[in-house]
Amino acid sequence: MTRKLFAEFFGTFWLVFGGCGSAVLAAGFPELGIGFVGVSMAFGLTVLTMAYAVGGISGGHFNPAVSLGLAVGGRFSWNELIPYWAAQVIGAFCAAGTLFVIASGVADWTPGAFASNGYAELSPGGFSMQSAFLIELVLTGMFLIIILGSTSAKVPGGFAPISIGLALTLIHLISIPVTNTSVNPARSTSVAFYAETGAVPQLWLFWVAPLLGAAIGAAIWRYVIAPEESLQGIGGEGE
Amino acid sequence: MTRKLFAEFFGTFWLVFGGCGSAVLAAGFPELGIGFVGVSMAFGLTVLTMAYAVGGISGGHFNPAVSLGLAVGGRFSWNELIPYWAAQVIGAFCAAGTLFVIASGVADWTPGAFASNGYAELSPGGFSMQSAFLIELVLTGMFLIIILGSTSAKVPGGFAPISIGLALTLIHLISIPVTNTSVNPARSTSVAFYAETGAVPQLWLFWVAPLLGAAIGAAIWRYVIAPEESLQGIGGEGE
Amino acid sequence: MTRKLFAEFFGTFWLVFGGCGSAVLAAGFPELGIGFVGVSMAFGLTVLTMAYAVGGISGGHFNPAVSLGLAVGGRFSWNELIPYWAAQVIGAFCAAGTLFVIASGVADWTPGAFASNGYAELSPGGFSMQSAFLIELVLTGMFLIIILGSTSAKVPGGFAPISIGLALTLIHLISIPVTNTSVNPARSTSVAFYAETGAVPQLWLFWVAPLLGAAIGAAIWRYVIAPEESLQGIGGEGE
Amino acid sequence: MTRKLFAEFFGTFWLVFGGCGSAVLAAGFPELGIGFVGVSMAFGLTVLTMAYAVGGISGGHFNPAVSLGLAVGGRFSWNELIPYWAAQVIGAFCAAGTLFVIASGVADWTPGAFASNGYAELSPGGFSMQSAFLIELVLTGMFLIIILGSTSAKVPGGFAPISIGLALTLIHLISIPVTNTSVNPARSTSVAFYAETGAVPQLWLFWVAPLLGAAIGAAIWRYVIAPEESLQGIGGEGE
Repeated sequence: MTRKLFAEFFGTFWLVFGGCGSAVLAAGFPELGIGFVGVSMAFGLTVLTMAYAVGGISGGHFNPAVSLGLAVGGRFSWNELIPYWAAQVIGAFCAAGTLFVIASGVADWTPGAFASNGYAELSPGGFSMQSAFLIELVLTGMFLIIILGSTSAKVPGGFAPISIGLALTLIHLISIPVTNTSVNPARSTSVAFYAETGAVPQLWLFWVAPLLGAAIGAAIWRYVIAPEESLQGIGGEGE
Repeated sequence: MTRKLFAEFFGTFWLVFGGCGSAVLAAGFPELGIGFVGVSMAFGLTVLTMAYAVGGISGGHFNPAVSLGLAVGGRFSWNELIPYWAAQVIGAFCAAGTLFVIASGVADWTPGAFASNGYAELSPGGFSMQSAFLIELVLTGMFLIIILGSTSAKVPGGFAPISIGLALTLIHLISIPVTNTSVNPARSTSVAFYAETGAVPQLWLFWVAPLLGAAIGAAIWRYVIAPEESLQGIGGEGE
Repeated sequence: MTRKLFAEFFGTFWLVFGGCGSAVLAAGFPELGIGFVGVSMAFGLTVLTMAYAVGGISGGHFNPAVSLGLAVGGRFSWNELIPYWAAQVIGAFCAAGTLFVIASGVADWTPGAFASNGYAELSPGGFSMQSAFLIELVLTGMFLIIILGSTSAKVPGGFAPISIGLALTLIHLISIPVTNTSVNPARSTSVAFYAETGAVPQLWLFWVAPLLGAAIGAAIWRYVIAPEESLQGIGGEGE
Repeated sequence: MTRKLFAEFFGTFWLVFGGCGSAVLAAGFPELGIGFVGVSMAFGLTVLTMAYAVGGISGGHFNPAVSLGLAVGGRFSWNELIPYWAAQVIGAFCAAGTLFVIASGVADWTPGAFASNGYAELSPGGFSMQSAFLIELVLTGMFLIIILGSTSAKVPGGFAPISIGLALTLIHLISIPVTNTSVNPARSTSVAFYAETGAVPQLWLFWVAPLLGAAIGAAIWRYVIAPEESLQGIGGEGE
């Protein structure tokens, strides 16, 4: 159990450090900056790389919504849910803090939004709360369908981290302008407390919508698309 | 059969929601927008991810032209063609509607072209009907050669979603300026009805050219390049 | 033999149509264009996708320099070299012609450089003939080392098209500003005759440097790095 | 032993020639340049491609920090460390020299920073020495966790070059603005001597931070995350 929690800690650390780090440090660099394409790639590659590295140990969730969805989908023990959530949130906070220290090493730097998620006046493109809720719900739901499908016994072992990591890249390509893309409550929570823009009061949406979406997506997989699928964890091994 | 149709429904939903969604929501975002490169990546990754997730169930077509081509190529039952087309078109319409609701959550938003396909005055780069027809024909034909080749028994299992998904990325890298890239009648049809630009009267081309191209490409594979190939579905499993 | 030549024809058609097509049609589109990153991705993905599709049939060369290098490396029959070159050059010309027809479907279009290769006054960045020769030599040499290494028996089957296709993407990321990137005499020859910029008199360099580099790279692999390697073709199967 | 050192020589040559080459030649090209996204892709693809090509021979380190970390992790012989470092540094210098010759083939060219690494006044974004040290330490540490995890016996063979190469892409997406991204002392050293900006006096940081980070990351993997893992080299084979 301890090893699994270390794996989730480091995996979620990497997701926040790499994904939010690329957004904070590199997205808007003059002329050569990586933009939303680069940030989308970065988020996806954090999951792809750490799912290969530690997916065989913990299943490679790195996301409370994924852990919930895998439990709903019958692939993860409900008993481990709270410890996993704790390891993920702690890992995310350590990453946000480390990133804050690094980013503050520039003269006259201010955190600004610090890659936090938001809706309405905090949405990058000014999208309403309703749009934000709906897109987070739909994207997390589809994310769980992809995770459950890509780790089913029908798919040859080893490809799941590619499918799941690149799904997260895709999700960011679609939705950064709407909510700055969460689909991951741990990621949202960790950076919200460093933002200067008042992201904390909006955090409820980035727990409720991803968790609800993950549960719905997992239920669709389990009861509609593939009721008889066998069990298998992300990264080739199970729990 | 029902499970296959659900798989096609969700796969085509994802293709339109992710591909057209990235175009509508993120392509033209000021300074940081994803541009045609990001949209091309998004379309390809919808297929890569859902082909891993449900390719083992339905074959992972998500496209009426692909279903037709696979039937011509001897890999898909003609009896299933119309149900597949129905599931694909319905999935595409649900995605376009969901995307419309989300996109309208911005003050003063208007749908504009809404990621629809077009030629002549509706071509992003002003390309003629003849150019549009020819490029859709050639690209869908090559797409089918890649699909049939990558799912043949000679290729080690599991790589087909990578090859096929990235082929769709490549197709978009080439042809967004010409037709906004279809190669998929379900994708074209679903968003045309939401566009304000008169895309519906041009829909015929985005059925005729992709279907004709797919049939030609599949026939070239079956009768010229690899007449003796064995049968195998996308995603590692057959029908 | 015929099937192999058809496979090389369609593969090289796709390389030129997709790679040069993305450059001609999409690279410089205002604001949203794909730039050199998109063109680099396109060239690499043409090889990745067709190597999966037909690599098991012809070996998936799509490039006279690769065929020569594989012969030098002991992986390809010298007897087949000239037929392969012919199929590759013919496929490239068919692609360039089709692309020309499509591209001309815009009012007031002129071919300009038409994605041709060049040095000195025809180098995109104004690089000298010496720089052009050296970079084409080095890149084709490293390309052959990657091809021979990635198709050796030590690498698990099926990954070679990923390694080789992405090597071509990498090669373009480096060298488009220098020569517009050739490393492939068939690709260079086919578009040179459509360019308005006088690319034909410079074609000699894009035969000599890639062929010489391929021979050197293959010899380094065969006699220095891995003298005892066994034989295996691109795409999992041999000749 | 000789073959291993040739493999490390050519692999590190490719890393510097491709990664730094894309930065020097293509990153800032007017309008169409590849920017930090393209440079990040290039660095990652050098490792992905050469790890497939020669990973089975030398393990595919191409980086003194990786060699040290693998030794700390118990996967690499301490006796081979110094020869590997020598081959890597020599390969990097040959690449930097070749790149210098090519890049100088433009009228009025000056080397400028020549893709060198730096902090404070030599940091692309003006980051302090402390920020530079911390980010190099963290990124190299996580890099080693990914390398050790992706090459463990739990991961199906053949995927390690994808995971490790794309990890390097991710690392660049995050940190080019901070230090121009090293995580590799050989890469930093080779180009520093060609830069006009005084990069050499800062080289100590790009040895100390990556080596220290690599040792810490490898120790975390070996003693915290996966104490009982079996041994396996990058690229599917062992040492």
